[in-house]
Order: sequence, then structure tokens, then C-alpha cells
Amino acid sequence: MTHHCTKFSGHWKIIVYDEECFQGRRHEFTSECCNVMEFGFETVRSLRVESGAWVGYEHASYQGQQFILERGEYPQCDAFGGTLSVFIFLPLSLSLPLTPIHPPQNHRECRMTIFERENFIGRKGELSDDYPSLQAMGWCNNEVGSLRVQSGAFVCYQYPGYRGYQYIMECDRHCGEYKHFREFGSHCQTPQIQSIRRIQQ
Amino acid sequence: MTHHCTKFSGHWKIIVYDEECFQGRRHEFTSECCNVMEFGFETVRSLRVESGAWVGYEHASYQGQQFILERGEYPQCDAFGGTLSVFIFLPLSLSLPLTPIHPPQNHRECRMTIFERENFIGRKGELSDDYPSLQAMGWCNNEVGSLRVQSGAFVCYQYPGYRGYQYIMECDRHCGEYKHFREFGSHCQTPQIQSIRRIQQ
Repeated sequence: MTHHCTKFSGHWKIIVYDEECFQGRRHEFTSECCNVMEFGFETVRSLRVESGAWVGYEHASYQGQQFILERGEYPQCDAFGGTLSVFIFLPLSLSLPLTPIHPPQNHRECRMTIFERENFIGRKGELSDDYPSLQAMGWCNNEVGSLRVQSGAFVCYQYPGYRGYQYIMECDRHCGEYKHFREFGSHCQTPQIQSIRRIQQ
Repeated sequence: MTHHCTKFSGHWKIIVYDEECFQGRRHEFTSECCNVMEFGFETVRSLRVESGAWVGYEHASYQGQQFILERGEYPQCDAFGGTLSVFIFLPLSLSLPLTPIHPPQNHRECRMTIFERENFIGRKGELSDDYPSLQAMGWCNNEVGSLRVQSGAFVCYQYPGYRGYQYIMECDRHCGEYKHFREFGSHCQTPQIQSIRRIQQ
């Protein structure tokens, strides 16, 4: 079954292809899609995000690895380290207009608190910027036990430098509360998070 | 041959292992290394950056893919999409002290101008922040013809969201001038650049 959220139509557009370099079968989405197989795709090998920020999932029903997809061209989806079967748009992007490259965009709307241990206890850190290495910024170790997104949305990564597994955290999902690493994503097996960045539009 | 730059010793420390998860043969570097094979390594499968920012290269003599390595643990180097044979520290990190996670670090020291075409001509954009999608920020297409780093250092990426090939651009190399995509890196075959971020310490 495909869910359509017409409220947001026109703000998001993604074109997917079942071959690399924008070849083969093609389909254009302007709203959420639970499963691209319903559109005759066995997999997605390249894609073009024309507007909005999207989240791709490895498996149907929003399971498996998550991949943040921002505006631009992705001629080889292998570069993510996985294939994509599902897309869901990110409602956050609604409130953030496109901004020209100069002057730099103001990102003050993204705020998150990270905690050393689960259930929002232990040492904490307040984040409102991009952090390619939490440890370089003074964080105690290579893990985050729990976290709370007060506003906006972030991508948390397993390794420094925005590498490894991705976990997309939004203030509008889970009420912004992720009290245990099992809530970070269905594929999350450890609390290892070493870099975090804001999602921008 | 190994080059040592004792001037910077103590500010950088990286520990490399020839097996995943910090197992096997181990070596600690505090300065530049042209070729880890000289230390009995056939490859590097995991590593821990204890201080400084490092650049890993795929092949000896600073050839092949580049990987930015920031403070933290990398239990599986496969996650970069390649293996590492060489490390060189990034002198930039000398001038940037470690900063605690709260309040957020000030990054105003990183400035770069990108140009639509080679030799610094065509449309241009001034950058002083992180840009997970240049197109979302108003950049004209999926390519950058040439660029000039006025201060600090940046990582440019082939795909949006800091994915794909990496090109490390510093104001202290090439006098900060990269006038053609062939100067972006030895592995660079196209001017495709779709995301750019500052290197922080």
C-alpha cells in the first residue's frame, strides 16, 4: 500500500532509476512511498533529488539501514553501502526555505541534547552545530546512551567524519526522544555514535 | 622513506591495526608516514585517532583516494570504501585548539570560494559553513570547476550528504588554489562536487 500525503506535494521531488547513471526504469515521487517494488522496481541504483530532503530505507516498512538523501545527483547508490527499497520524505524540510549559497544559511533552528547513558542520565552535551568528531569536541567516549531533539533534525553516524551507519533523528518523531540505542533505528545494534550533523534544506 | 616533522610531534596521535576491531599488529604514529608497509603492514583494517586530524591515502606517495580521519574510533576501515596505506597529518589542526562540546565551536576561520568553471571564472559562491547539498543552497549544478581556499581546510565530496570520493582542500597546499579538477586529487576524474564541509579540530 502506498501512502500519499498531498499536504506536502510539490515541496519534494525525487526521481529514481533501476540502473546506474540515471538509466533504465524511472519513477518520480513527490510524496512518501512505502515500497518501490510496487512500482516495478527490484532495486534503486541511481537517483536524483530535485527538492526536499528524503530518507531512504534498506528494507520495506522502514526497516534496515537509513540513508539521508539531500538535493543533488546520486549516479551510484552503491556509494551508500546498500540498496534502497523505500523512501519517506522528511516533514522537517517544509519549514526551511531554499537559501542561496551566499550569505551562509542560519541553522540555529536545530538543537539536540545527548546523554552518556540511556534514559537521559549521565553526562550531557548540548548540540546546535555540525560535529564531525564528538570526541574532538570534548565528548567523553565513542557512544551516546540516549538523546533528545528539541528542534529540527539531525543525522547521527557510527564513525567520525559522517561515515558508517546513519540514524536520522527528528523532533517530530518519537516526540524527539530516543531513550535507548534500540530506538535509534531498526538496524542499530550498539550505542556507537561518533559524529552528528544537522539536516539542512 | 619516512618523513618526520618533529615540529608537530605531540599534537597528533593515530594508532593503526592490521586487523579489524583494533586487533593484530599495531603501530602508533605521531607524525607523517609515507607508507605503512615500511612498518610491516600490508594494509590497515582498523584505527583510532587520538588527536589531530589526519588524511589517509589509498596508495603510497599520496596517490589514490583520500579519506579524512578525525578523532575517534574506526573499527572497520572498509567503511571508507577502501584500504589505507599512507597517512599524512594535516598541519591545519595546529592552530585550532580542542574545544568542549558546549558552547558550540566557532568555525569562522574556514573560508573558500567556488567557481563554476576552471581557472576561477564563471559564477561563484562564497563558503564559510558546512553544505550537505550545494544545490539546495543555490549552487547552479553538480560540478565545481575550480576553487580557492582563503583560510582553513575543507573536504569536498562527490555526492550530496558527504558521500563518495573525498577531496581535501587546504589553504596551505597549492597556495589554496585548485584551478582545475585534476588538481583536486590524483583520483579525481570529474569536476563533480555536491557537498562541502569544514575540517574541524
